[in-house]
Amino acid sequence: MLENKNQSRTSLSELGEFGLIDHLTEHFKITKETTIKGVGDDAAILKFPDEQVVVTTDLLIEGVHFDLSYMPLKHLGYKAVMVNLSDVYAMNANASQITVSIAVSNRFPLEALEDLYAGIQAACVNYKVDLVGGDTTSSQVGLVISVTAIGHCVADDIVKRSGAQVNDLLVVTGDVGAAYMGLQVLEREKEVFKVNPKNQPDLEQYSYIVERQLKPEARKDIKPLLKELGVKATAMIDVSDGLSSEILHLCKQSNVGCNLYEDKIPLDPQVISVCEEFKLDSTTIALSGGEDYELLFTIAQADFPKIKANPNFSIIGHMTEEKEGMHLITRGNTKIPLIARGWNAMSDNE
Amino acid sequence: MLENKNQSRTSLSELGEFGLIDHLTEHFKITKETTIKGVGDDAAILKFPDEQVVVTTDLLIEGVHFDLSYMPLKHLGYKAVMVNLSDVYAMNANASQITVSIAVSNRFPLEALEDLYAGIQAACVNYKVDLVGGDTTSSQVGLVISVTAIGHCVADDIVKRSGAQVNDLLVVTGDVGAAYMGLQVLEREKEVFKVNPKNQPDLEQYSYIVERQLKPEARKDIKPLLKELGVKATAMIDVSDGLSSEILHLCKQSNVGCNLYEDKIPLDPQVISVCEEFKLDSTTIALSGGEDYELLFTIAQADFPKIKANPNFSIIGHMTEEKEGMHLITRGNTKIPLIARGWNAMSDNE
Repeated sequence: MLENKNQSRTSLSELGEFGLIDHLTEHFKITKETTIKGVGDDAAILKFPDEQVVVTTDLLIEGVHFDLSYMPLKHLGYKAVMVNLSDVYAMNANASQITVSIAVSNRFPLEALEDLYAGIQAACVNYKVDLVGGDTTSSQVGLVISVTAIGHCVADDIVKRSGAQVNDLLVVTGDVGAAYMGLQVLEREKEVFKVNPKNQPDLEQYSYIVERQLKPEARKDIKPLLKELGVKATAMIDVSDGLSSEILHLCKQSNVGCNLYEDKIPLDPQVISVCEEFKLDSTTIALSGGEDYELLFTIAQADFPKIKANPNFSIIGHMTEEKEGMHLITRGNTKIPLIARGWNAMSDNE
Repeated sequence: MLENKNQSRTSLSELGEFGLIDHLTEHFKITKETTIKGVGDDAAILKFPDEQVVVTTDLLIEGVHFDLSYMPLKHLGYKAVMVNLSDVYAMNANASQITVSIAVSNRFPLEALEDLYAGIQAACVNYKVDLVGGDTTSSQVGLVISVTAIGHCVADDIVKRSGAQVNDLLVVTGDVGAAYMGLQVLEREKEVFKVNPKNQPDLEQYSYIVERQLKPEARKDIKPLLKELGVKATAMIDVSDGLSSEILHLCKQSNVGCNLYEDKIPLDPQVISVCEEFKLDSTTIALSGGEDYELLFTIAQADFPKIKANPNFSIIGHMTEEKEGMHLITRGNTKIPLIARGWNAMSDNE
């Protein structure tokens, strides 16, 4: 399907570990004032005067988090960085550096890793972050990618998950559910390809949702946008595991409840039509799909006029007393408890 | 052999990802002033006023970096932290925080991860570092551990690999080669165990080298010791891949050459006797063995009197003009080129 057709293959063992690191990172430039020393010593050296530092890390495992039969390696590199930057932006911080460690089996030639690092580099350029370190090793099977992202922020600007107040409005950026439906389309095409390898998939009508799955973008724009609007979020989290799971995190850590309104959840028209095609309920997909990498945050009601007409934001609910619990108010005005059905990387059957 | 005999097994899927993180990290206490917020938000928040921050990361893969048939999970957790702290100390910085990400297959019960985290916690307590984040996910096969360590230091104290000068003395802490010989003993006992599972290995005569392999300690003590002695290292690296590989790194990054004296290389008597038993050359083991986690550094000749009688240090050589190259001066006074034969995680046959 979308696999790299490049037939050139250079064995990793020809380069050795240090040669490989040099080769893969030679085109990465240091651009941040906060990076004193990047790749090439025992540790990177950073300097953040008068600011707080944020650190986040994610581990991506082949066969669990990605399937190389439809995920091009360049996109995978890009996405691995996005997953982490999204967590930095969810603190309302500025992302500045990343480290990337990979473990690969011998089935990967050098050219495959070059594709992976081309995606990592594109992410570094687009999001203005420096690659400052990492580790490159072998695995017995499969590809493992571990990314750590470092950001910084003046202390007063940081937004935690724990600051939501009763009566605050619940806001989400962009739209949700698309990445999950993109995955469903890709999985279906993979099955078709298995039966008939000559069949070329036509993904054009699914272009938005497939791109949301294969090349997500982290919401770097939201911090400056909120600042411009004069809005300070009271609590924030990124939507990686599905809207319901993230709402439950915010409520739990802020000791509040929540009413979420089904008719306010932002869905792209393509998500609605593909959900119909797959006979899936679009609200369930929005609540449980995951991998949207949008930001979910709360604001004081007084800030409502500042964001109400902004196309980047949807007000999808409000926070309540903790004892009232967390509920979805359906289109039919039925109140049903909100439960986390987000994608669970630890469950036996996934 | 050394496997956990605890037969209690709790499936990871019973807890779910978030429950598992909560369970494994609940006994970790935040102790550093630089840790503003640890586990439990999108990112950890750190604060380092007037200091530079150092960041290092390592990825450990089952079957490549460790063998659970003789590596107890508690020791593995401890060692995974040491590997990273050693890199922080090699910058002459203070280690302050770590993140730990793990991927595990369903063959690991909760009790196994509790053992792993008990080792991580012991390392955090002994070395006074805070666990501030991570990721917990499933793998299709095997255990993957990714650790990132964060440290800090006033700018003037940081020691890079690149500062060695011609005529500087080359110094190593402790002794080298023991961890590699410990691994040889454990591998041999594993083969014996395969043939006769009732055979209980007697490792007492190998206790030092086996401990160096299974429970290495990072040299946190060197920074304050050098400070007390009034010595400022000009360049520093940790010995993880073998002495020769590390010397070549120092020389390459400092643009100098080196003469290393075979008779000065510090070897524990147990290493010498076990090398004889295994019919291996102890100098080769010291040069290429790896996993010693000692510190290798250079000092100005003027500092020689300050460290010459100190049992923590061995002066093993001196730096030369770059064009003179890097050589081992043997006991027989033969000069042979130094080549990196360190353990290479990228090679096909390891």
